[in-house]
Amino acid sequence: MEYKFSDKISSLQPSVIREILKFTSEPGMISFAAGNPAPEAFPVEDVRRMSKEILENTPILALQYSVTEGYPPLREALMKMAKARYNVGRDFDQLLVVSGAQQGVDLAARVLLNEGDTVICEDPSFIGSLNAFRSYNAKLAGVAMDEDGMNIEALEAALKANPKAKFIYTIPNFQNPSGITMSLQKRREVYRLAKAYGVFILEDNPYGELRWAGEDIPAIKALDEDGIVFYCGSFSKVLSPGIRVGYVVAPAPVIAKMTVAKQCNDVHTTIMSQLLCHRFITECDLDAHIEGLRKIYEKKSSLMMEHMDREFSKNVHHTVPQGGLFLWCTLPQGSDMMGFCRKAVAEKVAVVPGNAFTSDETAPSYSFRMNFSTPTDEQIVQGVKILGRLTHQMFD
Amino acid sequence: MEYKFSDKISSLQPSVIREILKFTSEPGMISFAAGNPAPEAFPVEDVRRMSKEILENTPILALQYSVTEGYPPLREALMKMAKARYNVGRDFDQLLVVSGAQQGVDLAARVLLNEGDTVICEDPSFIGSLNAFRSYNAKLAGVAMDEDGMNIEALEAALKANPKAKFIYTIPNFQNPSGITMSLQKRREVYRLAKAYGVFILEDNPYGELRWAGEDIPAIKALDEDGIVFYCGSFSKVLSPGIRVGYVVAPAPVIAKMTVAKQCNDVHTTIMSQLLCHRFITECDLDAHIEGLRKIYEKKSSLMMEHMDREFSKNVHHTVPQGGLFLWCTLPQGSDMMGFCRKAVAEKVAVVPGNAFTSDETAPSYSFRMNFSTPTDEQIVQGVKILGRLTHQMFD
Repeated sequence: MEYKFSDKISSLQPSVIREILKFTSEPGMISFAAGNPAPEAFPVEDVRRMSKEILENTPILALQYSVTEGYPPLREALMKMAKARYNVGRDFDQLLVVSGAQQGVDLAARVLLNEGDTVICEDPSFIGSLNAFRSYNAKLAGVAMDEDGMNIEALEAALKANPKAKFIYTIPNFQNPSGITMSLQKRREVYRLAKAYGVFILEDNPYGELRWAGEDIPAIKALDEDGIVFYCGSFSKVLSPGIRVGYVVAPAPVIAKMTVAKQCNDVHTTIMSQLLCHRFITECDLDAHIEGLRKIYEKKSSLMMEHMDREFSKNVHHTVPQGGLFLWCTLPQGSDMMGFCRKAVAEKVAVVPGNAFTSDETAPSYSFRMNFSTPTDEQIVQGVKILGRLTHQMFD
Repeated sequence: MEYKFSDKISSLQPSVIREILKFTSEPGMISFAAGNPAPEAFPVEDVRRMSKEILENTPILALQYSVTEGYPPLREALMKMAKARYNVGRDFDQLLVVSGAQQGVDLAARVLLNEGDTVICEDPSFIGSLNAFRSYNAKLAGVAMDEDGMNIEALEAALKANPKAKFIYTIPNFQNPSGITMSLQKRREVYRLAKAYGVFILEDNPYGELRWAGEDIPAIKALDEDGIVFYCGSFSKVLSPGIRVGYVVAPAPVIAKMTVAKQCNDVHTTIMSQLLCHRFITECDLDAHIEGLRKIYEKKSSLMMEHMDREFSKNVHHTVPQGGLFLWCTLPQGSDMMGFCRKAVAEKVAVVPGNAFTSDETAPSYSFRMNFSTPTDEQIVQGVKILGRLTHQMFD
């Protein structure tokens, strides 16, 4: 039997990251390729207690069908929280609970993109989102990154060159994969250009709470006077990714369409997960918990950078993020980046090749992504040492 | 700000069922409009015990990211179970865990349908699936139902008339909304025609276990020598719909593409839910539990039919299902069905108008769907009495 798939899906390959993740379960592999929260970052005792109480007090609520929009008390609590913590959400906005921010991005694409429309994205950017856009036969227009976010001239050029651009996709805080944070000035510029060119902004903020240095910068959504910004938040890095809960704050007509699309997609988000999230943000000490997370990631990132600066060839550069889970390393121009990644895996250290994250996967890339949240401290020290030796062999 | 949505979504309206469901939360409303399992059907004690043990023994596994394909021990257990219970799954098949069977149907559509392709469906059929197909700009070709499933001549005519037909969508057991079960002979005919016309079969079986009368009939997937049947199963009616777990059994290349699409969609299904399902099917007495469910629904359906046969006008007919959650009632040709449904709601009894389920929502419908699993016994008696009075007023 020959299987002929839809045009939009047939060109799509499995995510390189997910493929490498499978590979990294090999015994003895040190993986800097994942993006998992540190195991010690989970509030296990809180989850045990809250789960027990939910199943004692409201078992049928926790097991029965629920509404597509999300558990009403959770929606309400999230709207309050988003307003209080990030100044996100205005009178014209609504909130939809989604099955992880990935679903928020996917649904936004589904309700907005016709085949052949363009998405303007940071280059590099998160592969999961890029693949979601590709899966609707969208064209990707990548915009090069400066140290403080998208290059604004390149963004304007992309907007001019792509009259069918529908939205700008950005991860403004501790971007995946680069670790870069967009400056306030650039957030204002991106907003101004989006408005001027009549395109929307899809703002993805899974890492915003994980800042261990510098000052918080307002969300682009906080600047949204015109109802052109759709904001995705997530519980994955703050509570747990396994429970699959995120949310979208966007103007009411957009949320209405996304709700219709979500009905067709998965009916509603796991209600037990939603009940956990509701109790977590209304009953637990969120500030103290997040402070704990920041300490964990500050320590791990410092350890990784300290050892990289000691062990790596001086010809290999890395970003110095103020939060998040990732570092972005760049080899000298013209280097055999894939060769480096393959040698690393052969020596039992996994990193993600940079072109997994580029809008044009066939364009040359001399970068790779390192994650410091998943490995143990010992693995960080040991793995960086092995990579360091390779960098000296290949790039000194 | 004006919001211009994608062509494929902009025509789609919120599911009539979900809209009515919201309405049914009004105080004093007796709802025959839902499709929820009976509250007493949930194995609450088992869920409490299993959840506690999972969070005691493997908390990080339950909270961390997982793989897109599904928790490997659950996949393995489901493949064994599907083979043993339904003779579903051959050497060429694989299994994907999905976030409810709705996601399985949606992903199948996503990987198979180009805009303008046709889906051949039973008429009436499940609105959630029809809307998923519509959301990919597919054309729906409805096939009229006999008492034992699709009219085979009408099916062949639809296949002839629609050269761009991609698959036949069917719910062969206790169909939603009609309650009809397809005979073995018709399953063979549907398979033969699908093969002859080079189209696939998407077999959706959420209710298969809920048989309280008659004999089990083999799944169409059990006849699949050629790798043309994609089978969706669900935990929603057997364990819990709130946990959002289903599965798809299909040839390996199809599962591979669906996995790629699922990566873009929600990364993976809530892992805690998957762990619960795994323990449920490997440790609990599934047969005894299902036997209990059958008794609950046999009792409720009998109560509803007994009272309908006593209270309803003789000009109103209903199907007599052997399982599932629904009855399908038909008013005399030319009746004002919508008027009947509106009067019923005004008297605080909700049913779902039949054209919610037709491939052409504007075609005349004289039917409505009744659900007996959600209301209490008292509500069934009381609600049927009110509806009965209306049928005499309007159709005697």
